[in-house]
Amino acid sequence: MTRYKLTIAYDGTKFHGFQRQKKLRTVQGVLEKALFKMTKGQQVNVFGSGRTDAGVHALGQVIHFDYPGQIPADNMLKAINSLMPLDVLVKKSEIVDENFHARYGVKKKTYMYKVDCGYYTDPFKRFYTGHYPHHLSVDKIQVALKDLIGEHDFSSFAASGGVIENKVRTIYSATAVYNENNNELVFEFTGNGFLYNMVRILVATLLEIGNGRRDVHDFLRLFEVKDRQEARGTAPASGLYLKEVFYQ
Amino acid sequence: MTRYKLTIAYDGTKFHGFQRQKKLRTVQGVLEKALFKMTKGQQVNVFGSGRTDAGVHALGQVIHFDYPGQIPADNMLKAINSLMPLDVLVKKSEIVDENFHARYGVKKKTYMYKVDCGYYTDPFKRFYTGHYPHHLSVDKIQVALKDLIGEHDFSSFAASGGVIENKVRTIYSATAVYNENNNELVFEFTGNGFLYNMVRILVATLLEIGNGRRDVHDFLRLFEVKDRQEARGTAPASGLYLKEVFYQ
Repeated sequence: MTRYKLTIAYDGTKFHGFQRQKKLRTVQGVLEKALFKMTKGQQVNVFGSGRTDAGVHALGQVIHFDYPGQIPADNMLKAINSLMPLDVLVKKSEIVDENFHARYGVKKKTYMYKVDCGYYTDPFKRFYTGHYPHHLSVDKIQVALKDLIGEHDFSSFAASGGVIENKVRTIYSATAVYNENNNELVFEFTGNGFLYNMVRILVATLLEIGNGRRDVHDFLRLFEVKDRQEARGTAPASGLYLKEVFYQ
Repeated sequence: MTRYKLTIAYDGTKFHGFQRQKKLRTVQGVLEKALFKMTKGQQVNVFGSGRTDAGVHALGQVIHFDYPGQIPADNMLKAINSLMPLDVLVKKSEIVDENFHARYGVKKKTYMYKVDCGYYTDPFKRFYTGHYPHHLSVDKIQVALKDLIGEHDFSSFAASGGVIENKVRTIYSATAVYNENNNELVFEFTGNGFLYNMVRILVATLLEIGNGRRDVHDFLRLFEVKDRQEARGTAPASGLYLKEVFYQ
């Protein structure tokens, strides 16, 4: 058996998320189906760095699996790509030792969130951005982002349904860049871990701050109250991209 | 009756082209359905500047129609947009006099064609570019584009099925810009008219020139021979955008 680490991109629009589901099209399902073909009928389990929800995209999701037999990393890349649908692309393939684990070895992750600030929904962006056609002060958002940096209890920003007890996470960087050419506001968050829906809830809260409907330092209060009801909104899946996963 | 001129954008991916077809989803069909609703049951005929094929996009398609009653142009824009699916956007609305005709009044049109030059198909570009993962000399393409300028017989570049006898058209400008950041080559063509599939055939020929499989001045020969078989290829619909339509 040889362990392979792959870095993959996918357009999440037509997937029911990353995780394998019976009868639904998922990224893990598509990958395992390809490996089943390559091994002529052996079940190969794919492990991802984490799940992504339906409609969420990836520019640099990382997976690993154990393959019966050894083929050069580059041949593995070509073989899998030849079996991938057009909405999944394997960008990089590496042979790693058996201590590497795509999920348990994660040190940091970077998520990107794209907001289309145009008045009307742009037909070409509807699956690839969240849409916020309201007043936004990017300055206020910049101030608020500073409050996110560091170690905090993100209980207010975790969707119910998660089973994780410890909701303390560390955010290393949180940025927003507004591009006036395409009227897009692009957020990036790098942290040691993210709770279920956390980025989408953070973005919804940041947009409310930018719109003036929340105090610029509302994050400080939300860390204290530890109450999901207080953060309310969840930005749409379509704007979210898993950009990069970092290991040791 | 009041005549309205609308400028619209659409993502052509999920349309069976512009022109109304029974039981198939088309841009004209979607617009006429909205107007049918607004007029509480009157059939309003929509006239476009020209058809676009299945999968072809528009950034600035122009249409006109006669509406029973008069509402301010801006209200028309809001009313129609509120009835549009997310893949169609009305960008501009004007009241015009009865001499305006979206099709017969066209003076010039600009088409854009986007080519993704990456080795693998980018999951995010598959519906929005043509894909050409082969060697390309942009210099050769620039030389060839100059041969297109002016009045020529484009018989070699018209798909069979067209009924137009006169295949002489004038190209005012033809450009190609390569962007190394996203590895895209973007063509733009402005002319007084374009035959059926003409832009897609021109692009396929230009890519063969850039790849070195045709002489850089092959257009001069193709204008002479007037033979569709000689031009061969047709670039995919997904890369084509009707960018702008010009009137008097």
